[in-house]
Amino acid sequence: MARRRARRFKVAVVGATGVVGRELVALLAERGFPLEELRLLASERSVGEALEFGDEERRVERLEGRALAGLDLALLCAGEAVSRAWAPAALAAGALVVDTSAAFRLAPEVPLVAPELNPEALEDLGPGRLVACPDGAALAASLALAPLARAAGLRRVVVVACLSASHAGRGGLAELDQQTRDLFNFRPARVERFPHQVAFNCLPRCGPFEADGATALERGLADEVRRLLELPGLPLGVSMVQVPVFSAHGLALHLEPGRPLSPEEARELLGRAPGLRLVDSPAEERYPLATEAVGQDEVLVGRVRADAGGLALWATVDNARRGAALNVLQIAERLARGPLAR
Amino acid sequence: MARRRARRFKVAVVGATGVVGRELVALLAERGFPLEELRLLASERSVGEALEFGDEERRVERLEGRALAGLDLALLCAGEAVSRAWAPAALAAGALVVDTSAAFRLAPEVPLVAPELNPEALEDLGPGRLVACPDGAALAASLALAPLARAAGLRRVVVVACLSASHAGRGGLAELDQQTRDLFNFRPARVERFPHQVAFNCLPRCGPFEADGATALERGLADEVRRLLELPGLPLGVSMVQVPVFSAHGLALHLEPGRPLSPEEARELLGRAPGLRLVDSPAEERYPLATEAVGQDEVLVGRVRADAGGLALWATVDNARRGAALNVLQIAERLARGPLAR
Repeated sequence: MARRRARRFKVAVVGATGVVGRELVALLAERGFPLEELRLLASERSVGEALEFGDEERRVERLEGRALAGLDLALLCAGEAVSRAWAPAALAAGALVVDTSAAFRLAPEVPLVAPELNPEALEDLGPGRLVACPDGAALAASLALAPLARAAGLRRVVVVACLSASHAGRGGLAELDQQTRDLFNFRPARVERFPHQVAFNCLPRCGPFEADGATALERGLADEVRRLLELPGLPLGVSMVQVPVFSAHGLALHLEPGRPLSPEEARELLGRAPGLRLVDSPAEERYPLATEAVGQDEVLVGRVRADAGGLALWATVDNARRGAALNVLQIAERLARGPLAR
Repeated sequence: MARRRARRFKVAVVGATGVVGRELVALLAERGFPLEELRLLASERSVGEALEFGDEERRVERLEGRALAGLDLALLCAGEAVSRAWAPAALAAGALVVDTSAAFRLAPEVPLVAPELNPEALEDLGPGRLVACPDGAALAASLALAPLARAAGLRRVVVVACLSASHAGRGGLAELDQQTRDLFNFRPARVERFPHQVAFNCLPRCGPFEADGATALERGLADEVRRLLELPGLPLGVSMVQVPVFSAHGLALHLEPGRPLSPEEARELLGRAPGLRLVDSPAEERYPLATEAVGQDEVLVGRVRADAGGLALWATVDNARRGAALNVLQIAERLARGPLAR
C-alpha cells in the first residue's frame, strides 16, 4: 500500500515580529511543521522585516483582511487587543485559531489548552474553532503542580512569580537594556514601557490593576491554573514581581498536598512528568536558573523540599519559547493530526 | 536642680567598612549617639581606610584584643565567623555586645531583639550581656506581620524574599556591578562570590544549603519570625531568591489570619505600626519599590489585598540600613538609656 502523502497546511503567524512570534516561526521551521504556506503577519510598522525561517529568510506582510483568506490555521501572538480585533475575522475566513493572549483564556466556551495536561480538549472543538493558551507563568505553575495534584491532591497553593522583561515584549526588553546602560553611564533611567525603573529594581506589579488590588495577570494565573488542573475551588494565592531579567520567569511554589507527600516522592513524580525537567542537586549548586531555562523546551523544576507541613519548589520557564510558542506549536501539531486532517 | 550631664559611651563598630558597618557609622553620627569614644575596627586589609562620620573622617583600626579594652558597647557587623571569634573576647573585656550576624540568633539564652517588637528583652539582659539582631528579611517580615498577628492571629504564612546583592556584602555588590559591565561588553560574566551569574538572573539560593534542601537563611527567617512574633508553632513557608538588585530586599507575604481581616483593616493596622510606612495606591502606581526603600528608616508595605481567603502584601526594606544598622542603633540607644546608664 502506497503511503498517503500527509496533508500540508496554510498557516499564518499574527504578530510574527514579537517576542513570542519570532520563537514560533523558529519552532515551525525547527520541528518541520507540515506547511503548504506560511504567512508572517504584523502591523504596518514591521512590514518588510525579514525573519529567519530555518536557513531561509521570510518577509513580514501586513495584517489585513485578505491576508487571512484561505487559511487553515491562524496563530495569534500579538497581544490581547490584536486578538480581540482579528480572531473573529480569522474564524470567519474559516481558519482554526490558536490565541496566545489573555483575550479568551477565561471564556468558558473556549478551551484553554496545555497539550501535556488536557489534549482531549482539542479533539472536539465544536463550532468555536478557537483555542486559548495559558500565560507562560500559569503554564509553568500548572505543569509543575499537575503531577503532585494527581498523586496527592492539593489543598492550598501560593505562587510568587518573578517575571522577566520579555514578558512585556520587545519594548520591555529594550527598556531594561537601555535603563541599565543609562544607569551605568550616570544618566537617569528613562521610563516608558514600565511604570517605574525596572533595571536593578523589583516592581511588585505586572500589568494593570483590578479594582480589588490584584493585577489582571495575578488573577489570571490563579484562574488559569484552576482551569488547567480542573480544581475550580483550589485556594491559590498569587503575587507577581517584575524583575530585571531579560528572559525566563522564575516561580516559587508553596503547596499543601491533600495527603502527606515527601520531597523524594514529589521529585520522582516531577522527574517523569511531561514538559518538566528536574534540576535538583543543591549539593552541586544545581537548581533551576533563568539563564539555564532560556531556549529550553521544558520547565525546569528543583529545590523540592518539605516546607511548613507541605512542599516548596522553584521553577523556571523560558516564557517566550516554552511558556508560549511551544504550547502553540504543540497545539498546532495535534490539530494537524486531528481536526485539521479530517 | 542642675540637669545631670548624660553619660557618654565607648563604642566599637566591628566590621566598620562592610555594607552594614558603614551604615551604622553613618547612623551613629546622624542620630547623635552619646559617644565618648568611637573605634572603627576591621580586618588587616581595611586598616587605615577612612570612613565618614558626620563631617569628619575617621580611620579604621585593626580588630585585635587590645582594641576591645574598656569598651561599653561592641557592635558586631562583620558576619558570622568574626562574631563567633570575637564576641567572647568583647564580652570578657566587659562590653555589652550587639551582634548583627546569624551566630547567636537562635541561641535560646540570647535575646533576639527588634526594638519595635520586643524592647522589654533589653531591660534584663542577665549575665549574657549579648543581644542578637534578626536578619534584614526576617525583620521586615516580622514588622509587617506583627500588627496583623496581634489583631487577628496568624494561622499560616508564606514569605518569598527577593534578596539584593548587598546582602552578600561589598563583594556581592561588586560582582553584580562587574558582571553587568562584562555582559554589556560581550565578555563572559566572571563568577566568584555567588555560585552562578547573578546579573540578569534569579538564583533560587541565598547562602549555603542544609541537609533537607532548605538554606540556613530560609530556615533562619522562619525561626526568627516565629521568635520575634512569639508564635513558636506558626507554620511559615519560606523561599529566598537572589535577584539582580544592588540594595533593598523585596518580600511577598501571603498569610491566613486567625479571623477574617479585610484589606482595609489590614492597611489601617499597618499604617500605624512602628517601623512601617504604608505605600499603597495602585491606581497611582504607588507601591513599595527597592529603589524607594533605599536610605529609608521604615519598611515600606503595600499591595495589601485579599488573596485565597487570606491576605497578601509586598514589603521592601533597605537591608543594610533599616534591616540591620538601624536595628543595632535602636538597640544601642535603648541600652544607653537603660542597662548601660545604670
